[in-house]
Amino acid sequence: MSRFFSSKYNSLEPYTPGEQPKDVQYVKLNTNESPFAPSPRAVEYAAKAAQSLQLYPDPECRELTQRIADYLGLDFDQVLVTNGSDEILNFAFMAFCDEDHPAVFPDISYGFYPVFAQLNGIPYTELPLRDDFTIDADEYCGIGKTIIIANPNAPTGIALSTDEIEKIVKSNPDSVVVVDEAYVDFGGESCIKLINKYDNLLVTQTFSKSRSMAGARLGFGAGSKELIRDLNTIKYSTNPYNINKMTMAAGLGVMEDEEYTQKNCRTIIENREWTEEQLRSLGFETTVSKTNFVFAKHSEISGEKIYTYLKENGVLVRHFSKERICEYNRITVGTREQMEIFIDKIKLLLEEN
Amino acid sequence: MSRFFSSKYNSLEPYTPGEQPKDVQYVKLNTNESPFAPSPRAVEYAAKAAQSLQLYPDPECRELTQRIADYLGLDFDQVLVTNGSDEILNFAFMAFCDEDHPAVFPDISYGFYPVFAQLNGIPYTELPLRDDFTIDADEYCGIGKTIIIANPNAPTGIALSTDEIEKIVKSNPDSVVVVDEAYVDFGGESCIKLINKYDNLLVTQTFSKSRSMAGARLGFGAGSKELIRDLNTIKYSTNPYNINKMTMAAGLGVMEDEEYTQKNCRTIIENREWTEEQLRSLGFETTVSKTNFVFAKHSEISGEKIYTYLKENGVLVRHFSKERICEYNRITVGTREQMEIFIDKIKLLLEEN
Repeated sequence: MSRFFSSKYNSLEPYTPGEQPKDVQYVKLNTNESPFAPSPRAVEYAAKAAQSLQLYPDPECRELTQRIADYLGLDFDQVLVTNGSDEILNFAFMAFCDEDHPAVFPDISYGFYPVFAQLNGIPYTELPLRDDFTIDADEYCGIGKTIIIANPNAPTGIALSTDEIEKIVKSNPDSVVVVDEAYVDFGGESCIKLINKYDNLLVTQTFSKSRSMAGARLGFGAGSKELIRDLNTIKYSTNPYNINKMTMAAGLGVMEDEEYTQKNCRTIIENREWTEEQLRSLGFETTVSKTNFVFAKHSEISGEKIYTYLKENGVLVRHFSKERICEYNRITVGTREQMEIFIDKIKLLLEEN
Repeated sequence: MSRFFSSKYNSLEPYTPGEQPKDVQYVKLNTNESPFAPSPRAVEYAAKAAQSLQLYPDPECRELTQRIADYLGLDFDQVLVTNGSDEILNFAFMAFCDEDHPAVFPDISYGFYPVFAQLNGIPYTELPLRDDFTIDADEYCGIGKTIIIANPNAPTGIALSTDEIEKIVKSNPDSVVVVDEAYVDFGGESCIKLINKYDNLLVTQTFSKSRSMAGARLGFGAGSKELIRDLNTIKYSTNPYNINKMTMAAGLGVMEDEEYTQKNCRTIIENREWTEEQLRSLGFETTVSKTNFVFAKHSEISGEKIYTYLKENGVLVRHFSKERICEYNRITVGTREQMEIFIDKIKLLLEEN
């Protein structure tokens, strides 16, 4: 760091995004992208929007926000659209955590949570998952801190029921509960339906996974009008024009093409089930994933060895060095063809050992 | 605010973007957009990028960053591309200001500076412009605070010379000096050339004005490798994928079409000079603008009255209620046709008074 860098960031460790290698053509199963092209309508709308880039986007993002609100059964002022769900998560840490309102989240979860906490100088606790990687909802009940839970969780893929989420939300009436539903469209249960019942619930979602728009940067938060108003205060103090015109247009396009999204989700779920079955028949242990990835470890071969072998053989998966999960790999579910290549490589590895 | 909102934002007043009315077709001269369509190459590249939105953008933004660095005569690691220049400005406030390094900027300048300071809990001082709205560079010499100067300044349009900027940078070797060059392409002098001489200089620019890309959200910061590394630490702790694929592609397109940008800038300068001449002949006082806007007040009619009359007659300009400048309006320079309509409305107003 430079001699000018504020000392408040002395211990800040930035997030490390998944590899985006340029050199080899990999079967890329490492960043939970969709293997399917974006909706043709999203592409068409985005291309049209590019023609009038000289004008600022609508800072209120009215049309898209209303569309999302309608889809969720909420009002316009219960939704805030952001530059990916990372932005709404950061806004939530800023708005609802401080010295007096520390954060709490699972020890194994989205690696950005501790970074957001550190960035904003927020004290935080990481509650260990159970040995089977499930979240013990009871541990969060009445905890009196700002709670951030990815549901389904990543990289484990395991989901809590909305009943368990509701128990947490209900028992912490004076704390905000953020439920990060980035992966909910692949078999999880959304707790959007609880929003009108609890004023302390913020749900975040993304267009990066089920809607094939990781490259567009689009996410949103949904909650009570009061929470959304606070988050808008942060937005208008940070980057009022946070969503560019093309992304806004693409978002509208994909929302008008919901059948396409649903069809892709069904295919991903089928491919996930096929992949898990194959892996288990090859001596792997897998978690019960409700996401577009599989979390798996082999009984005999180390997680790192599998990761390295696959990479050397043109298949990129994500390996985490964190002790509790270093025997696992997170494998994004792609097309059936991609998953067949992946399984073939795994078979080759097993033959060689 | 909700009962959950962190008390650290009790006195935060968000930025108010210029009006983006939907109801009437205005001659829109209120948000300093370019009247010219984006480069056809930018449109073409963006449309192509939309086809592969399912994949994350390159978080390092390699190709575009290198292209901008080449254009500026700098190295890759001296440039950081951001989601509009608002993002790099916020990053700079975060990285280089704190309790021990308060911020200082002119009292009349980009209205977002105090918001960034408030957002990040940074003490700040607003140094009054001279009566003629010029910045007294000497007041900043040796001031020992993190300095933020828009050059040319907004909404006054007035520029400092690079010699004056250099004096400020040189006399504050232990403080970062941020020079916000959002409007530099319309006749100002860029101090990019000072970057390799001073490790405490950060220059920010935007694609929103001269490059007709306000709707794409693209800006950048340029400075020493050390400053850029710090700003990258903030970026990777905030939103690593801050630039979406389409914007990245559009940015490359417009950089390959520099002649288009230069031609548009020349036209804007011609239209600015024509407009100022007309206004002065009608009893207006104007500042010496080196930007794509004119800052003007009439000797007899109030700034607010002019703003309101123009709006009622289909021309939108920007009026600020701040006391020192409330007799002025900031008028974006558009096409010659737009400026003729504007001048015609002004003539009608004067006839009616």
